[in-house]
Amino acid sequence: MTMQQLLNIELPVIQAPMAGVQGSDLAIAVSNAGGLGSLPCAMLSPDALRAELEKIRRGTDRPFNVNFFCHTPPEPDPQADADWQALLRPYYTELAIDPSTIASGAGRTPFNAEALEVLKEFEPAVVSFHFGLPAPELLDGVRSWGAKILSSATTLEEALWLQSQGVDGVIAQGLEAGGHRGIFLTRDMTTQMGTFALTRQLVAALNLPVIAAGGIADAAGVQAAMALGAAGVQVGTAYLLCPEASTSAIHREVLASEAARHTALTNLFSGGPARGVVNRLMRELGPVNALSPAFPLATAAIAPLRAAAEAQGSGDFSPLWAGQNTRGCKPVAAAQLTRELASALD
Amino acid sequence: MTMQQLLNIELPVIQAPMAGVQGSDLAIAVSNAGGLGSLPCAMLSPDALRAELEKIRRGTDRPFNVNFFCHTPPEPDPQADADWQALLRPYYTELAIDPSTIASGAGRTPFNAEALEVLKEFEPAVVSFHFGLPAPELLDGVRSWGAKILSSATTLEEALWLQSQGVDGVIAQGLEAGGHRGIFLTRDMTTQMGTFALTRQLVAALNLPVIAAGGIADAAGVQAAMALGAAGVQVGTAYLLCPEASTSAIHREVLASEAARHTALTNLFSGGPARGVVNRLMRELGPVNALSPAFPLATAAIAPLRAAAEAQGSGDFSPLWAGQNTRGCKPVAAAQLTRELASALD
Repeated sequence: MTMQQLLNIELPVIQAPMAGVQGSDLAIAVSNAGGLGSLPCAMLSPDALRAELEKIRRGTDRPFNVNFFCHTPPEPDPQADADWQALLRPYYTELAIDPSTIASGAGRTPFNAEALEVLKEFEPAVVSFHFGLPAPELLDGVRSWGAKILSSATTLEEALWLQSQGVDGVIAQGLEAGGHRGIFLTRDMTTQMGTFALTRQLVAALNLPVIAAGGIADAAGVQAAMALGAAGVQVGTAYLLCPEASTSAIHREVLASEAARHTALTNLFSGGPARGVVNRLMRELGPVNALSPAFPLATAAIAPLRAAAEAQGSGDFSPLWAGQNTRGCKPVAAAQLTRELASALD
Repeated sequence: MTMQQLLNIELPVIQAPMAGVQGSDLAIAVSNAGGLGSLPCAMLSPDALRAELEKIRRGTDRPFNVNFFCHTPPEPDPQADADWQALLRPYYTELAIDPSTIASGAGRTPFNAEALEVLKEFEPAVVSFHFGLPAPELLDGVRSWGAKILSSATTLEEALWLQSQGVDGVIAQGLEAGGHRGIFLTRDMTTQMGTFALTRQLVAALNLPVIAAGGIADAAGVQAAMALGAAGVQVGTAYLLCPEASTSAIHREVLASEAARHTALTNLFSGGPARGVVNRLMRELGPVNALSPAFPLATAAIAPLRAAAEAQGSGDFSPLWAGQNTRGCKPVAAAQLTRELASALD
């Protein structure tokens, strides 16, 4: 089955959900262009989720995707928080931040019954998950209106597990991909494969459509992914300069610069491994620091640093999410980019 | 220019040079099948090099490639050697090895004037390098008989540097690739890109043929690499089970097993980062251990452990080099594999 048949779309292009840098505007533009627009929901309250879904409903009658994280929230660990804040103390001093004002809380909520209730009002055609899948009763809830279910795999083992749970398609998230890695069956980062190796092996091993993601940024990349047997692609980074994305000015500037040649997986901004452009915090603490608390608990202590630095026009403390191929980033309308991505296909 | 035109071959497939698991037999078979066979020379003495080249000359009149390392040998560091051997001491005890019998020496010699003199007797059509390029006078020597010169790049910066030095083609060695990474302008492993992202960016930035390597293991992979704009591919892992390779029985068994799903970059076997199947030594010391001496000085202390374990039928201490996609490994003649790799091209 082609991805277009599975998802009832024209072009085999999913716009990757990217929390923090896009909302309904980008999703609407991509869906209207014939791809599958995605709304990242990991940082949306139920009310905000409803508001975004209402906007999408008004903006398009095409299928769209809503994406949720489904991590198991870690136990609060005050000692780990204290150690993390102690490591960051020189930066609080530098930026004149009172650490006692740091908010607590996770910042990202896994998919839950409240979110499911909101979705039921809108019955989105596609629901995708990151970090595995939610509990069976929640997944059954999503299936109740016939939504197609996708999730990301970063290893063959994860892909086989997702297939065993009855997903409709698997996103092969290669190591090149920007943002959070969907890794969920292991913490061993040496298991993570490049898009080329991962896509080909998932295609060979699964009886499901495989959607390639990571490093795909132009029409030739899409064509190559299809040659590997992918049913379609998921593209994120290339959309970051589109006017419909909410990417910050600082983030846009970095993406358009030579600095974007060097990305790394980092756990500094959330606690979980995610790929972004190497910046000052990553250089000084190392992109992966053992004192960063469990995902997503690292976020709160970084937030005031990020806010203060960004107010001064600096991305030194910002997660500058990007994949390993930023050559596709162009300040063009998302509809144009979507059509260009699919332009080399028959 | 196509790679076939550049190298005067029929099929755009280079068999990757793989020291320790192949010699002239594999190179001859691949060249005779229309690809470019490669002789790994990093561990050959001048006499052994001459003997292998004589065999190739007898075995084929087609072009072939000779591959050399061109690292700068590190200063001997007795303290580092002692620390490394101290870390390995429990294994010496377990395998009843007297550490005082450990040979010293590097095990791998960079390309030098002696090797050049041997090459002049044979004038191989292609000479490829790993870890950059040799000194200009050595490179001029190679150019003297019109050999085409290739070298590996693992980042855009390395590729641009190689182009500035006048190489005839650049091998884009993606992170998926097995064996030693050709990284030479930095030690920062976060710079290393997946094949998908690296190939596409090198194709866009260079005025030279780009040869994709890493994770390419079958006809669809070759087709995908060409869709990314590669002029050809370099394939190693898929050849490891061919009868013409000298891959050990232990290595073959691992490659055909599920263990091969999990490879990692490790510095334990030579001191330099190289990708192999995760085995006991890598699990117990971590695939990357700070006590491993500089490349290639880690080799000598591992050698007796490897020999003793292999004599017992164990690969616990062997470098089980492999890329991230071992699905293409098949016990078929190298000629057949070469033709299959090119079979999806027009």
